[in-house]
Amino acid sequence: MKLDNDLLIRASEGKDVERTPVWLMRQAGRILPQYRAIRNSLSGFKELVETPELAAEVTIQPVDILGVDAAIIFSDILVVPEAMGLPYQMIEKKGPWFENTIQSIKDVNDLVIPDVNDQLSYVLDAIKITKNELDGRVPLIGFAGAPWTIFSYMIEGQGSKTFSKAKKMLYSNPELSHKLLQKITATTIKYLKAQIKAGADVVQVFDSWAGILSHQQYLEFGIKYVKEICDAINEVPITVFSKGAYFARKELGELNCNTIGLDWNMDILESRALIGQNKTLQGNLDPCVLYSDFKSIENQTNQMLCKFGKNRHIANLGHGVYPDISPDKVICFIEAVKSYEH
Amino acid sequence: MKLDNDLLIRASEGKDVERTPVWLMRQAGRILPQYRAIRNSLSGFKELVETPELAAEVTIQPVDILGVDAAIIFSDILVVPEAMGLPYQMIEKKGPWFENTIQSIKDVNDLVIPDVNDQLSYVLDAIKITKNELDGRVPLIGFAGAPWTIFSYMIEGQGSKTFSKAKKMLYSNPELSHKLLQKITATTIKYLKAQIKAGADVVQVFDSWAGILSHQQYLEFGIKYVKEICDAINEVPITVFSKGAYFARKELGELNCNTIGLDWNMDILESRALIGQNKTLQGNLDPCVLYSDFKSIENQTNQMLCKFGKNRHIANLGHGVYPDISPDKVICFIEAVKSYEH
Repeated sequence: MKLDNDLLIRASEGKDVERTPVWLMRQAGRILPQYRAIRNSLSGFKELVETPELAAEVTIQPVDILGVDAAIIFSDILVVPEAMGLPYQMIEKKGPWFENTIQSIKDVNDLVIPDVNDQLSYVLDAIKITKNELDGRVPLIGFAGAPWTIFSYMIEGQGSKTFSKAKKMLYSNPELSHKLLQKITATTIKYLKAQIKAGADVVQVFDSWAGILSHQQYLEFGIKYVKEICDAINEVPITVFSKGAYFARKELGELNCNTIGLDWNMDILESRALIGQNKTLQGNLDPCVLYSDFKSIENQTNQMLCKFGKNRHIANLGHGVYPDISPDKVICFIEAVKSYEH
Repeated sequence: MKLDNDLLIRASEGKDVERTPVWLMRQAGRILPQYRAIRNSLSGFKELVETPELAAEVTIQPVDILGVDAAIIFSDILVVPEAMGLPYQMIEKKGPWFENTIQSIKDVNDLVIPDVNDQLSYVLDAIKITKNELDGRVPLIGFAGAPWTIFSYMIEGQGSKTFSKAKKMLYSNPELSHKLLQKITATTIKYLKAQIKAGADVVQVFDSWAGILSHQQYLEFGIKYVKEICDAINEVPITVFSKGAYFARKELGELNCNTIGLDWNMDILESRALIGQNKTLQGNLDPCVLYSDFKSIENQTNQMLCKFGKNRHIANLGHGVYPDISPDKVICFIEAVKSYEH
């Protein structure tokens, strides 16, 4: 289906654009009262993730309400470990929790590389419904967690400040670690290809815990598997967002991907110099700027757009939008991008 | 009193050393069974912090047991907000918790700049006892939190993944923020000077949450106040450890301090180039390397020492030692530093 608004695709491919496209990580979520109304009518977060019609509805809300240039399918990176054999719960105000974690090579061997069309059919159905209802208005972004980030949850069983259990596994049992990362990678490639087949126009890989690793370890256990994913995905543009991995920007720039996400700590001009001219950059306003007044949001957004330049940039925050941000402030950011003249 | 082992002082001042000095952040703590024995005989962490004889005892334990080249007074950065009027509890397995937080300018005005000799006498007494018992064997390090990090706890009331409440305050009420930071800075200068008068041979400022700020905000709300502290402390060498503030290494190198701490993400040679030749660097082995086998610990330590060079380096981890690390592994790291030949 031809897209009415293909700014995100053209920006990803390095083609000319009339203006910079804009969307926000976590745009489908708690910032919108319309989302909260649906969410509160259900038993929990997972029921929403697992009900394709509702997942599609909240995916489209920010397109209608905020005017973003892309939708991102409402889901969670943890559906992958669940499909591989480690079910999780999303505990209110605490975050994800896994009853079983990976501790031994037997645990790794017991994990399956799932039939994603079966185990993750609810995500693929949500993508199909969303694509149909979007009717070509804007592109739909699919996504998955990067292998290292998924590995971290599989070992830790929950979030962590230090991820020391997951890092301990890398240092103390590199063989097990590589075997597990390989299995996650194989699943992720199948999963992203299925999302693309279902209709995703772009895919993004989230390496949320990249920044906890040393440079050497991120090369050995992180980028290595992100590279395998990038090399396998040729159907649509692919974005890699390795939060905190400032030390690896040069190597990220060598990946076979279209776009690199920047967090708000990363200097824009330095990142461009390290990553090179052949990648689109995505980001990177500090999400807390949206706590300022309207004038400041506009000023900071304009400064950011000026530094990135017109082409090869997708405007976004440097992290997911925080749930207590007012939608008016989000719209202010989006409108500032749309009205900026390079 | 003359120090028998003044390697840390000489390294801080850029003088020649026979070998690289070594100590570990959080060396006095849960890694040592001797610490846990004392800790478990008490009602909680704070009783230990507030009992000078016992704080001195656990401060000296790593000198005797591990053979480090410095002691660091056993205390907590949160004694400062408490002395200013915000008492805290240390909740087992959860971390610090403040019943009252700063929300308004009235709250800021209600805070006191305390008489540290009165309100924080227990820390100063612990320093005096420690100095006496150390009897010149190694230097004693005093410390305080940096104003931005203390500010974060005062606003959030506890740890946070995003510190979005504290950052919201910076963006939405910069006047209140500067007033509060100024008040914390004034207290911190008095507190560090009192520690030095009590016997601290070196002081360190911990900016644990520096890395959560954008570059611009760290300059405006972070380094500005660390600079005031560095400019005020001329009695002994001062170290600044701004965890995660890789983006501000150039400005950190311009501070009127002796030593800059590096976390394990920061490339050693790049950091030296950014910070310049006139500072000592402290760090920066990934704390998780101590989960590896002895041979790997030795190899990684040797690689680190080679990159830093012989002078203007204090060996340490890039973060506090994790509580489940075996003391044997810590000793392996320390011995590797001591036996390394440049």
